[in-house]
Amino acid sequence: MSETEIVVRYAETDQMKIVHHSVYAIWFEAARTDYMEKAGYPYARIEEEGLMLPLSKLECKFLSGARYGDTVVIKTFMKKITPVRLEIHYKAYRKKDSALLAEGITVHAWTDSSLKIINLKKKSPALYSLLEKEAGADT
Amino acid sequence: MSETEIVVRYAETDQMKIVHHSVYAIWFEAARTDYMEKAGYPYARIEEEGLMLPLSKLECKFLSGARYGDTVVIKTFMKKITPVRLEIHYKAYRKKDSALLAEGITVHAWTDSSLKIINLKKKSPALYSLLEKEAGADT
Amino acid sequence: MSETEIVVRYAETDQMKIVHHSVYAIWFEAARTDYMEKAGYPYARIEEEGLMLPLSKLECKFLSGARYGDTVVIKTFMKKITPVRLEIHYKAYRKKDSALLAEGITVHAWTDSSLKIINLKKKSPALYSLLEKEAGADT
Amino acid sequence: MSETEIVVRYAETDQMKIVHHSVYAIWFEAARTDYMEKAGYPYARIEEEGLMLPLSKLECKFLSGARYGDTVVIKTFMKKITPVRLEIHYKAYRKKDSALLAEGITVHAWTDSSLKIINLKKKSPALYSLLEKEAGADT
Repeated sequence: MSETEIVVRYAETDQMKIVHHSVYAIWFEAARTDYMEKAGYPYARIEEEGLMLPLSKLECKFLSGARYGDTVVIKTFMKKITPVRLEIHYKAYRKKDSALLAEGITVHAWTDSSLKIINLKKKSPALYSLLEKEAGADT
Repeated sequence: MSETEIVVRYAETDQMKIVHHSVYAIWFEAARTDYMEKAGYPYARIEEEGLMLPLSKLECKFLSGARYGDTVVIKTFMKKITPVRLEIHYKAYRKKDSALLAEGITVHAWTDSSLKIINLKKKSPALYSLLEKEAGADT
Repeated sequence: MSETEIVVRYAETDQMKIVHHSVYAIWFEAARTDYMEKAGYPYARIEEEGLMLPLSKLECKFLSGARYGDTVVIKTFMKKITPVRLEIHYKAYRKKDSALLAEGITVHAWTDSSLKIINLKKKSPALYSLLEKEAGADT
Repeated sequence: MSETEIVVRYAETDQMKIVHHSVYAIWFEAARTDYMEKAGYPYARIEEEGLMLPLSKLECKFLSGARYGDTVVIKTFMKKITPVRLEIHYKAYRKKDSALLAEGITVHAWTDSSLKIINLKKKSPALYSLLEKEAGADT
């Protein structure tokens, strides 16, 4: 599990005066970038190895609106890792009162740089075993 | 059901050379705006009546990446309407070969302008019955 | 000169209830994509030839706010072409009353796919002479 | 002057594998939010007083592309304040090698919540004199 703080940007609000729902997917991505950075395997390095991690699925429940002026804390949990798939869970909280704003799940496929599915366990055993360990700790 | 054409914008791509997954939520929104426009009840008018329609849930499966140069067709289906809730389904296709790119669901709450839940059937019976009719036709 | 219609997206508004200023750069890009499409040389083809056109400069004056519900018309003018540089001008109008919303300029460098400056006249004489003709007509 | 660190988000890249130029306007905005926060007058408070600060002009020169994996440092300079206008300058650097990525200017109008121009010196003398002091120090 890792925690990532995000300061709401003005551009992220919409005319409902809350953060637009599409932004949570971007925050979740920033949070998993931060997770991998802290786990010692930056996502930029994963791409340098010729691996990509496109989404196959996104789910998000919105419970309360984040507002400009808020700092948001994203808790990121590595949930399931298989040789072809990765599942990550997220909880977004408003920092000042710990209110739960949103909960999300992303499911990813492991691919090469031309977006063809690959077997991560064979292609990058070190990354695979790191994620296995993380998933074991977070679940 | 309505169909909405969207031309991929360069800014919507990411360094995987496909459209970033967060963009589909924005396209779905543009598609439901277009749906309501065609149904004769523009979403801008809904907000003028003091009603808002924030998301409570988003689900999206990504099957193939949209690319710069593609035109995307979104088919939008009004699925379920209750006095407090609206569910809409979407299918995004690549226009040139009809490949299915993504399938999504948005669930919305009906609220007033301060984001408090309201009963749509009481607050705007005309809109409620229009949506009921649409949902009947689309399901 | 080409004209491109853009329907304001809800996600493009911010809590001032107008379209966020950063969006105009995205609209200008969509408008020049459309320009090149209509000129018979789609920008996607330019990239397939190994050419890229990153911005070196952006200027925009904002005169009136676009709102959700508006359709915006972008007029795009090819202004100056040299072997290493392209300058394009834009005027954004609100469709319903022709109010001028914004005026912009983008200046681009011609590069190869690794972002190194190239000489367009040598690399792609056909594209160069097309743009020269367009710039002659638009200025 | 204030310094704001920004971690590049994957969603901010485009298929040129650099950060899309429209993102700099969003970063500049995040940087001026941070500036005002540090100056003890958060922008969210300015809006609570019924004041808004829409852009009337944006200029940006792009010198080198930011990439995913980069941390960017924005230096923000309060440049000119008049009762009806505010001008802010920005320099964006890549943190790891201090390379200058972009330089920008935003010019803002002071308005009330319905976007009508107001005289800041009369409407909020405390904010006006704070900005005058900051502009004196930054110029």
